[in-house]
This record gives sequence, C-alpha cells and structure tokens, in this order.
Amino acid sequence: VGATNGHAIGIDLGGTKILAGVVTREGEILRRHERPTPIDSQAGLLEAVEVAVTELLDDSVSAIGFGIPAPIDQKRGRVFLATNIPLTDFDLRDRMRERFGVAIGLDNDANAATIAEWRAGAARGATDVVMLTLGTGVGGGVIANGAPFRGGGGAGVELGHVVLIADGPPCQGTCTGRGHLEALASGHAATLAAQAAFGPDVDAHELVRLADAGDAQAQEILQRIGALLGSGLASFANIFNPQLLVIGGGFGVAAWDHLIPAADRVLRRDALIPARNEVKVVPAELGTAAGLIGAAFVAYEALDAAL
Amino acid sequence: VGATNGHAIGIDLGGTKILAGVVTREGEILRRHERPTPIDSQAGLLEAVEVAVTELLDDSVSAIGFGIPAPIDQKRGRVFLATNIPLTDFDLRDRMRERFGVAIGLDNDANAATIAEWRAGAARGATDVVMLTLGTGVGGGVIANGAPFRGGGGAGVELGHVVLIADGPPCQGTCTGRGHLEALASGHAATLAAQAAFGPDVDAHELVRLADAGDAQAQEILQRIGALLGSGLASFANIFNPQLLVIGGGFGVAAWDHLIPAADRVLRRDALIPARNEVKVVPAELGTAAGLIGAAFVAYEALDAAL
Repeated sequence: VGATNGHAIGIDLGGTKILAGVVTREGEILRRHERPTPIDSQAGLLEAVEVAVTELLDDSVSAIGFGIPAPIDQKRGRVFLATNIPLTDFDLRDRMRERFGVAIGLDNDANAATIAEWRAGAARGATDVVMLTLGTGVGGGVIANGAPFRGGGGAGVELGHVVLIADGPPCQGTCTGRGHLEALASGHAATLAAQAAFGPDVDAHELVRLADAGDAQAQEILQRIGALLGSGLASFANIFNPQLLVIGGGFGVAAWDHLIPAADRVLRRDALIPARNEVKVVPAELGTAAGLIGAAFVAYEALDAAL
Repeated sequence: VGATNGHAIGIDLGGTKILAGVVTREGEILRRHERPTPIDSQAGLLEAVEVAVTELLDDSVSAIGFGIPAPIDQKRGRVFLATNIPLTDFDLRDRMRERFGVAIGLDNDANAATIAEWRAGAARGATDVVMLTLGTGVGGGVIANGAPFRGGGGAGVELGHVVLIADGPPCQGTCTGRGHLEALASGHAATLAAQAAFGPDVDAHELVRLADAGDAQAQEILQRIGALLGSGLASFANIFNPQLLVIGGGFGVAAWDHLIPAADRVLRRDALIPARNEVKVVPAELGTAAGLIGAAFVAYEALDAAL
C-alpha cells in the first residue's frame, strides 16, 4: 500500500480516556480502540498510547495523529504545558516516529475536533469556521481561508482563554488568567452557578436536566451563560468573519436549547457587519468521535507535507 | 518601466485627511500629497481621491492601494459599511481600475498600518504580529505565518471590536456592540474618563499632559485603561501566539509610558504559556505615515497577485 492511499490512526489523548481509531481520508472510522488514560507517570501514559497504536496498526497505516489537550510546539513536536496529562517537555513526535516509522502529526485537541467537523461534519464545504468545544473547559479551533489556522509556531488558537470580563473570575489549573471564556461559559462555570443556586450536589448535568424539566431558575442560569457565550462568539466573528460558528462539547450540545437563543441575540448585537447579518451558529455533528477523526486528519496533513 | 519594478501609490483615506504618497517596495516615500477629506458626498470624496492620485501619478506607477477605515469586501472590492466616509456599497476597486488602468488593492486602514510596520517598521523580520492602533477608535491587524491575515472574505480582523467586558459600555457610531475594546481602551474612552474626573474641557490629549506632569489622578485613569488594554492584548496573544504586539495610533504612542507598564502586568497574568513568557510589546515606528506606506504594500500585493 503506497503512502498516499494508506490509512491514518487518530488518537484523542484525553485526561480520562484514550480514544483511538483507524480513519479513512473521508473521515470514516474503520476500527476503534479505547482505554483509560494513565495519568500517574509519563512512562505509563506512553505505554498505553503505544499499546493503543499497536492494537490498530497494520500495513495499511501510513500516519498517526494525536489530539492533545494542550498548546503544541509544532516546531519541536511536543506540548508546551499539559494540565491533565503528564507530557510536558517531551519529544512526542520524535518518539512516535522512531517507534512506529510512519508520519506523525500533533495538534491541540480542539483544533483536531474543528478539522474533523470541517472535513466530515457540521462545517463541510465552509472555508471559514470557528468552533468552540464547551465541556468542563472550553477549547476552540479555526479554519481560515480553507485551511486549519494555528497562529504563531502552531501554538494557537486558545479561544477558551480569550478575556470576556476583564479582571473577572479565575480559570482552573495552571492558567493564571481572569475572566476568560472558560471561566464564564463552560460546564465548570455552569456547575459553580448551579451549586450557588441549588446546593453542593447539583452539577452542570443536573442543571441542564432541571432546565429541560422547566425549572425557571435553572433556565435563567443557562441563559445568562448563553449571553456571555454570545459575546465571545461576537469577538470571534469580528476577528475571523467566519461563515459558521460551530458549538460542540458535552455541555454545549446538552445545553444547546437553553444557551443558544440567548447567545444568538447577544452575538447579533456585539458583532459587526457583515458577520452580524451573515454568520450562522450550528451544533457539532460528530460527537465524541470528533477528536480521533480530527487527529487522523492531522496525521494525513503530516503525511502529505512529508511527501 | 515593467510592472514588477514600478512604484505604488498608497492612499490613507481617513475621515479627516487623505494622505497619499508614491512608495517603493522597501517602504520609502518618494513623493507625498495631502488634502482634507470631503465627507459630504461620495462624488466629492471620489473627486478628491482622483485629484490626489493624479498629482502623484507618472509612468513609474504600476499599482494603487487604499487603506480605508471600514471592513472590506475583498471579493467585490468595496467597503461593507464605512462610518466616517461616504463610500458604503460602492465598487471602489472597479472604479479606480477603470479610471487609472493599474492594479488596485483595498484594505482596512489598520491592516494596512500593520503591514507597513511588519515590512518597514517595528515588526520587521517577525512572522507573527498583532498590532493595535489606539486613536479615537481602535483598529487592529494581524500578520500570521509570515503573511497578512484578514479572515473570511478579507473582512477581518476587527480587533477593536473584541468584547473585553461582556455587556459593558457601548461603542460609538454604527456599532451596536457593548464592552468592546474600542469602548474601553481608546482615546475616546480616555476623553470620557478625563471629563468625568476633570470636567468637560479635558480630553485625552490633556489627560496625557496632566499625567506626564505628575498628576496622580490622571496617571491612575491611564493605568486603569492600560490594565484593560492588557487583557485585550492577552486575548490576542492566546489566539495568535505572536512574537510581537505592536502599539500604534496617536493615543497609544502619546500615552505609552502610562498605559504599557499596567498593560504588560495584566498581559502576563492573562496570557497562557508560551506567549506569557515570550511575547513582546513594542511601539509602532512609522507614525502617521504607516497608513499610506501600508496601502502601498497592499497595492504591491494586488500587483503581484495579478501577474
């Protein structure tokens, strides 16, 4: 099998699970593998990754791609600072290339999910796309002028860490920033607001369930988060002028009905012409598979660049 | 004279003045022309533009570029919605091409200034740059991966209209948004804060003069604006991961000493690794000539694309 018509393995290296699959150039998953992510040591994590690859590897595989929850140093092929997994300052690309002898691509997990939705999901056919993945945290990706956009050194785009309320509430983890989108319009932010309103046992999932069941206070909390999300979407519309704003992630999809009407109203107020009239907000289509499918597209990108 | 070694005319089409010049590919201004901008009618504006061009035009000129204070529809060669000049929904590129028979480039004025600083000013040699022009309003431009970045349809980047305080104070003019950078960290915002503190006769210029003379209240107002600016700079650092953040514009340059120490502190707090440690904030170098020099570079870009 020649390099250009081989398949790629995509690996979504999450803080909880390693989701891996053999994926065609059309984004079809041929085989899958899933295992828990060992987070106690780098050696344990690498072993699990290599077992996942080995389970899927055959002669048809020409490239392997990784989606990683961290900013990526594309020049050196490593992560800058991983919060949820023990991989900081490790030459992942070199190690995987030596180990498996195929083209290796690395990308931020939200960039990978965005590429997947663009090539095989909700944003097929668009040339300019901004996607936000609203989970516990917030990731983001950009397609600009028909290609993935990653900013300087490939370390962007960290759309979850755009300031939405200057000097506002702090982020979690290693981020020292205040008032970032992630601190205001994430599943984590929803959990904090739910606990303030309903007590310590209520999290974002339960908040959405209450809102779905008609609880006015729960609906109002989610609408308030939606309005903040709308201001963030307007910022991205004014910067990138995309055709589509794609909303994915577990919290984003589950709370869609409560978040998006409020978000859309504020988006139309805070965005400039032409985006104000033209940009569309759409839900992601690929669900939890977006990360591994996108990682495979990143693998194909590395393969094609190497040829 | 062949097309590739001809010169370009750059025209900075401001709300007050038309600044025009013949500019070399190195960014050197050979001849200049300046006249007031007629803003009463489109016909009067076009006549003034054509007189400015005619004053400068000779056989060495192969292209003309315009920097315009509005989002540009690059596909159709017109402005989407101009606030300060009567040019909305007019086919400027076609008209100028017919009139003068040379390659025509259009761009947003802040994009043009950014290109000028990148090719011939403070950001020479950098591959990834974000520039803000802090005047009465706020413009912005981006160089990404060694090329001007304009977003979908060429209508970006409107960095002055990124939300910095969700649901915050309104913009001026046709923008319906709230809490945009332009409403919080511009010369206009400084004038409003100065008038609240010192009375109706004090504007941004006088505020800076007071701060320079040691007035603690004036210094504090500018530091507060600087802190807001720092949050905005952090957003752009997290999105684009640039090597340089360039600050230009009349207010930005005049108030530099008061704004930037506060901005830099907040920038380092709100930005992620790697930008947090690596990005530099530098002043623009080309002053009021940046717009016309950049417009000439946009002309060369149009010329080279047409060959």
